Amino acid sequence: MDNRITAKGPKGVSHSRTLSLDAPWLAITIICVSATLSEAPLLLSPLLFFQLDSPFHHALWLPLQLGLALLPSPPLVSLGTTSFESPTPRILRDTRPTFKASLRRSESAIAAYFFDDHLKRFSNVFIFTQDNSHIMLHPVLRTPNERTRAVGDVVKCLGEELIPGIRKELYPVASLFGAPVFFLLERAAAPYFGIKAYGIQMNGYTERNGQKYLWIGKRSQVKTTYPGMLDHLVSGGLPHGIACMENVMKECEEEAGIPRSMSKEAVPVGAVSYGDIDGYRYKRDVLFCYDLKLPDDFIPKNQDGEVESFRLIPVSQVADVVRRTHFFKSNCSLVIIDFLFRHGYIGPDSLGYLELLQSLRSGDCS
Amino acid sequence: MDNRITAKGPKGVSHSRTLSLDAPWLAITIICVSATLSEAPLLLSPLLFFQLDSPFHHALWLPLQLGLALLPSPPLVSLGTTSFESPTPRILRDTRPTFKASLRRSESAIAAYFFDDHLKRFSNVFIFTQDNSHIMLHPVLRTPNERTRAVGDVVKCLGEELIPGIRKELYPVASLFGAPVFFLLERAAAPYFGIKAYGIQMNGYTERNGQKYLWIGKRSQVKTTYPGMLDHLVSGGLPHGIACMENVMKECEEEAGIPRSMSKEAVPVGAVSYGDIDGYRYKRDVLFCYDLKLPDDFIPKNQDGEVESFRLIPVSQVADVVRRTHFFKSNCSLVIIDFLFRHGYIGPDSLGYLELLQSLRSGDCS
Repeated sequence: MDNRITAKGPKGVSHSRTLSLDAPWLAITIICVSATLSEAPLLLSPLLFFQLDSPFHHALWLPLQLGLALLPSPPLVSLGTTSFESPTPRILRDTRPTFKASLRRSESAIAAYFFDDHLKRFSNVFIFTQDNSHIMLHPVLRTPNERTRAVGDVVKCLGEELIPGIRKELYPVASLFGAPVFFLLERAAAPYFGIKAYGIQMNGYTERNGQKYLWIGKRSQVKTTYPGMLDHLVSGGLPHGIACMENVMKECEEEAGIPRSMSKEAVPVGAVSYGDIDGYRYKRDVLFCYDLKLPDDFIPKNQDGEVESFRLIPVSQVADVVRRTHFFKSNCSLVIIDFLFRHGYIGPDSLGYLELLQSLRSGDCS
Repeated sequence: MDNRITAKGPKGVSHSRTLSLDAPWLAITIICVSATLSEAPLLLSPLLFFQLDSPFHHALWLPLQLGLALLPSPPLVSLGTTSFESPTPRILRDTRPTFKASLRRSESAIAAYFFDDHLKRFSNVFIFTQDNSHIMLHPVLRTPNERTRAVGDVVKCLGEELIPGIRKELYPVASLFGAPVFFLLERAAAPYFGIKAYGIQMNGYTERNGQKYLWIGKRSQVKTTYPGMLDHLVSGGLPHGIACMENVMKECEEEAGIPRSMSKEAVPVGAVSYGDIDGYRYKRDVLFCYDLKLPDDFIPKNQDGEVESFRLIPVSQVADVVRRTHFFKSNCSLVIIDFLFRHGYIGPDSLGYLELLQSLRSGDCS
């Protein structure tokens, strides 16, 4: 089975490389097995794997090392003897403060930093300010319905080539979460317009003999976004008109076969936010985080074909995978790091604790 | 028993008023009893207490209403049908951005916005920049030891009248938590110099029939700071040379008689930060938050005379006290609001969720 890993350069140029074998699960298998065997701090180095005197390990280490060698070096924040990737620099590669500030200046401003040339031909929908720093919606579009229809027509007109992955899910555009809706926008188009989107991510965990385990999913290879990458047990966008908790329960059912009698116990535990500039897209997400403690004998079962398989992994090993690889869908890493903070897997006596916490919480959660 | 409540005006002017009876515990008693009786959303209004047909309640409501009437109106953030106080405006009454920025400009800058006139006579220790925006330590003080001794002598010289409550606890002064120590400073003097201090606060809770209860302490009337106010089960400053977790276990023993076999299970769950300008003092604190789940039958017992009494209160009632009164030592409210977020007592489907979360997490956690 192939696992496509995409590494992006600082200017948003994409390079794709294909790794043989199933690298994400392999990484976790090796991390778990070697930790069990050695009970020493884990080092994903050839040294460790050569030292393990087992044909099983000799067979595994080569593809894994190959995978690690191909991954771009992440920026690291030192944390005691180990190190976590700092979520902000990893996800937001380009900060562009002027751009961010301009987003907040006007409620009706639609920012499309790279995308604006494509919008200039729709002068009945968009108006450009003289210095090109803002794109406004045309004032003849007076009601949310009129704006929704006009922008929707533009999205349709630009087509799949410019805005791929249209899902026919409408997301609200507003100055703040819960504020009056200015108009509704196709989910796939939101990052092209720099519009903030909201989602839910749920840490599904269980406890065995006082040790916590997280249920981790591996995304289907046929998903348009992040195929084959590691994911939470349950996650999803938040379309217009559905409450967070209702969405959690709906996604629990669809993605992991968790009945409502169980998912209604999911606990809201906060939110994280990030920005990610990638080519024409400026993704601005706020993720509402949930924890759900599952019964020991529960086994998730995907219903909608979006998840290839699930595994139950000790939290400390999940932390190692987040720290040392790029196998997790990157925004999952933020939610998992938040879980590690809240459940005591990272403590203030480790060097770099406050920097990582500050970095995790410095996103615009509005 | 008297309970002194201090209300401060916007210019840092202090007014003290003395209330008869023991208002903080009274508030909680009334909140708990009336919630049990009515099982309706709690309203601390005369109406509710007149409606309760019990001599017990008639005896209680007058002093409580008196207490509430004397308290200054807090700024409120709407949160669904109820409302929480926004922690930042409540604690940081005056932001003074220039002042804060100057603190970060130089590692060796000691800011003393109001206090500087008193320092001008120590020209062998402090140097003022021409525009008076910075006070630097004299460059002849080359080592941390020399600086510690020189500033310590100044603090002694200024005396109890200007810097009350000297505790003989030395706090590190550094650019960041864990960074090399520039010098050590008496704890009580830190806010007069605008120096950041670190502390620990622990939510001690227990679970009965699936409901969570927090152990709440009432500070002794003879404490120099915040006498008689409600407090966490365990909290304390973090002096130089002691690790956070060790400090938690030490304070657990001293403040609540929690043995180390129990307190070693305390879980680090994050940190909150705030600033508070009050007369000559600019308090800048980072509080490391801990949760400790206690056995159902454990009863805390204060060992050092700093706590007058403890009570076990359902979390939802604690939330009501934080929301509706000023009886909690104000930085405790932040740590409790953080607990409410992490344990699902506030959820994203309530209006104002993200504003309150953003406000809680916007402090400078460095």
